[in-house]
Amino acid sequence: MDQHVSRRSVLAGAAAGLAVPAAVTVGAAPLAAAPVAATMAEGVTRRITLYAEALPGGLFGYGLAPGQATIPGPILEMYEGDILEIDLVNNTDQRLSIHPHGVDYSVDSDGSPLNNSFNNPGQTRRYVWRTREMSPAIGRRYLPGSAGYWHYHDHAMGTDHGTGGVAKGLYGALIVRRRGDILPDKQFTVVFNDGTINNKVAPNTPMFEAKAGQRVEFICIGHGGLPHTFHLHAHRWVDNRTGYLESPADPSHVIDNKNLDPGSSFGFQVLAGEGVGPGAWMYHCHVQFHSDGGMVGIFLVRNPDGSMPAGAQASIDRFRGHTHPTASHNHG
Amino acid sequence: MDQHVSRRSVLAGAAAGLAVPAAVTVGAAPLAAAPVAATMAEGVTRRITLYAEALPGGLFGYGLAPGQATIPGPILEMYEGDILEIDLVNNTDQRLSIHPHGVDYSVDSDGSPLNNSFNNPGQTRRYVWRTREMSPAIGRRYLPGSAGYWHYHDHAMGTDHGTGGVAKGLYGALIVRRRGDILPDKQFTVVFNDGTINNKVAPNTPMFEAKAGQRVEFICIGHGGLPHTFHLHAHRWVDNRTGYLESPADPSHVIDNKNLDPGSSFGFQVLAGEGVGPGAWMYHCHVQFHSDGGMVGIFLVRNPDGSMPAGAQASIDRFRGHTHPTASHNHG
Amino acid sequence: MDQHVSRRSVLAGAAAGLAVPAAVTVGAAPLAAAPVAATMAEGVTRRITLYAEALPGGLFGYGLAPGQATIPGPILEMYEGDILEIDLVNNTDQRLSIHPHGVDYSVDSDGSPLNNSFNNPGQTRRYVWRTREMSPAIGRRYLPGSAGYWHYHDHAMGTDHGTGGVAKGLYGALIVRRRGDILPDKQFTVVFNDGTINNKVAPNTPMFEAKAGQRVEFICIGHGGLPHTFHLHAHRWVDNRTGYLESPADPSHVIDNKNLDPGSSFGFQVLAGEGVGPGAWMYHCHVQFHSDGGMVGIFLVRNPDGSMPAGAQASIDRFRGHTHPTASHNHG
Repeated sequence: MDQHVSRRSVLAGAAAGLAVPAAVTVGAAPLAAAPVAATMAEGVTRRITLYAEALPGGLFGYGLAPGQATIPGPILEMYEGDILEIDLVNNTDQRLSIHPHGVDYSVDSDGSPLNNSFNNPGQTRRYVWRTREMSPAIGRRYLPGSAGYWHYHDHAMGTDHGTGGVAKGLYGALIVRRRGDILPDKQFTVVFNDGTINNKVAPNTPMFEAKAGQRVEFICIGHGGLPHTFHLHAHRWVDNRTGYLESPADPSHVIDNKNLDPGSSFGFQVLAGEGVGPGAWMYHCHVQFHSDGGMVGIFLVRNPDGSMPAGAQASIDRFRGHTHPTASHNHG
Repeated sequence: MDQHVSRRSVLAGAAAGLAVPAAVTVGAAPLAAAPVAATMAEGVTRRITLYAEALPGGLFGYGLAPGQATIPGPILEMYEGDILEIDLVNNTDQRLSIHPHGVDYSVDSDGSPLNNSFNNPGQTRRYVWRTREMSPAIGRRYLPGSAGYWHYHDHAMGTDHGTGGVAKGLYGALIVRRRGDILPDKQFTVVFNDGTINNKVAPNTPMFEAKAGQRVEFICIGHGGLPHTFHLHAHRWVDNRTGYLESPADPSHVIDNKNLDPGSSFGFQVLAGEGVGPGAWMYHCHVQFHSDGGMVGIFLVRNPDGSMPAGAQASIDRFRGHTHPTASHNHG
Repeated sequence: MDQHVSRRSVLAGAAAGLAVPAAVTVGAAPLAAAPVAATMAEGVTRRITLYAEALPGGLFGYGLAPGQATIPGPILEMYEGDILEIDLVNNTDQRLSIHPHGVDYSVDSDGSPLNNSFNNPGQTRRYVWRTREMSPAIGRRYLPGSAGYWHYHDHAMGTDHGTGGVAKGLYGALIVRRRGDILPDKQFTVVFNDGTINNKVAPNTPMFEAKAGQRVEFICIGHGGLPHTFHLHAHRWVDNRTGYLESPADPSHVIDNKNLDPGSSFGFQVLAGEGVGPGAWMYHCHVQFHSDGGMVGIFLVRNPDGSMPAGAQASIDRFRGHTHPTASHNHG
């Protein structure tokens, strides 16, 4: 159920700025149906089927095929200009929906009970997400395009705001890229959801793995009812749209700790272990009683050849014995 | 008491960069005393009288005339370089003041009991707010000017920090514009104040209305003791000073969800329904139990001719029946 | 124990862009061992010894000499390219460490029990922090350098996340400057740590003092388990890396209130009293019950000749009588 995605080879060339159609990825390998990069100049329309299903422990997830639901759901990707049509199949016995952040949609794709936009149990419903490039406004300014590290989530289970669905795992990352954005080698979705990461607590939180030097993309999403801050050890990023300095004059903050509060999301790329070497690096909520309560995981940077760095296995073993000195966390 | 402001016709020409004097607006129409745009090159000094008054339900508000107090108070606007002199009349039986964010003021206009700057019951006191343009610093850098989406609030009722006054409605938006900033067609003030929006909970929260394509300005302010995140459905903005991309190279995040914690404020403009169409769009706190508790309202985007979009009345009717599945919210 | 640093005369010339070696400052005067500026073009390696010690009231602090521990610890400064080697002496009877934000370090300098990187009671251990300049990435983007307003803290006392050490005072500011950054006349470290500022509550919080017109640098750090917002009266800054507009086209927000949540940090410079005059200006957490509970202090802007401004002593006297209307704050 992890999100250890390693699919970028199928998109070779895209980093050089070629147009790439909407991509859908999940799991540890490229999705069979994922598109190979092409040199199309226009946005594309893609249709996928997403299945909402019950998972063990009272949880729920979205998946790209029956029986393949995960928490978080698959990473959905688009380029500015693309359209994504989602046929959401509700294989549960509860009302639910899918509501995206960042993209364009009509009221019937809002995913909200307010607009009567949800799936009853057993129902299939189509949601359409559209994207755009930046466009000129008056005064030499520009209306923003859709590019961003966004997310999607249920907006109908439990309450009219999907509080039940979000608490139980119905969420995932949505990336809209601008032409020319740098593509990563690996991607990790990190969801701070009440006192959990991806609805798990240490030592069962995801261990994200990369080889030293790989370009790794984190997509961080906040959910639930509590404030959080995301901290990654030994790596830092620019607090702007891409996580890179867009020029030497880019005035943005460089950070390694950022608020990750309900409904917010951000993303960035790092070269795994760059300047610090391989090792078992922590990522965690920096709210002290949240990290103590289990909101912590390991970003394992392996040696360039994929072997385990010296000392890393001992660190992992210590982590596996992680205890919770406080009981104040909240299993969402 | 709503802040459905539609006054921009009196400021025609300002969007092209002409200097405009300090403006004061409130309610659904231009304030009688509001200035008509002129082509002055320098900042202006304006004097207004503001009345602090008790309102039903133990609340308080600021207003531009006796008996006209609102929650939030009137939107106060200045251009960089302007001075605003406020004669605050305290028509209540409690100590109170007005404290601004972002602008320049001397200690006697601080609005704090610390500096003996407040109104006793029945007292009138003058507060002076000054603004500035950016100015060169050393190293080819610049000291910032005053432009921003700011706010004002009581700093003396209940406690030395105005906790009582803020909780009961003594707050409002303050905008300082830079010459050349784009002016909106309509303005809405959204204050997340403990578990309320503008001291109301759904379904009594404000319904903001605009015609599709109108340029709408949101000014969002956080107050009280709780963390919040502001989310607007189907619209997004740039997380910078203006909400627009300042150039194609502007590195800022594009967002639709942002922390709105006590004392913070931000603003942005959107074209109502652009790319998504008319409809009843939600705005809400994304902290799940806050939205469930009533921190949600409707941004009604009407058809371009002002008529009700298909389905919108049904959405509004559903909203009017909004129930609160949790009781954990806090009526400030 | 205050951090009223006035040392910049020893770094004359640096503001013009000359390279300056790693500096370490603490207290009200230049540290005897602090380096005098030189015109070196390359980063330097510096070694310091830091002492972790018990303080009265069950607190702990870092200091640059035995018996000189403070809360917060000394401000540590580097230029991009510098290396700082810290010999941490643990003069306490508890396990502890030092963990930095923003800089580069190997796993053995992580400061975390996960990586077996900490000091047992009585133990001395070397931690090495490295920094870098920005470097080209693909796509005309840049990997960020290390420059930033960072911080350091214990990561081993009490829990594997240093919750005990952080709560009791083991934290301080770490600044990494880019060549050409503007240097301040004075520096103040403000740590919002649960319900305290620098582990103190009003009226015992630090009173920061400067003469009108002095260039004052605030380094603000969040710790503990609660969300906070930092507000400074009558001064504002740019929400970017330096706090200054980096050009007239810099799109960044100008703010006077900012989230200061656990693990986050930011810094900025202001000219004391510029445009507003001398006086006793408040800085405080804007979460209402936190400021009421004592998370408030005074930024005393003296007259240019150093004398007390009219009325300021009365304000200070009122502050000294500060009472806490609520008991909900948390003495970390």
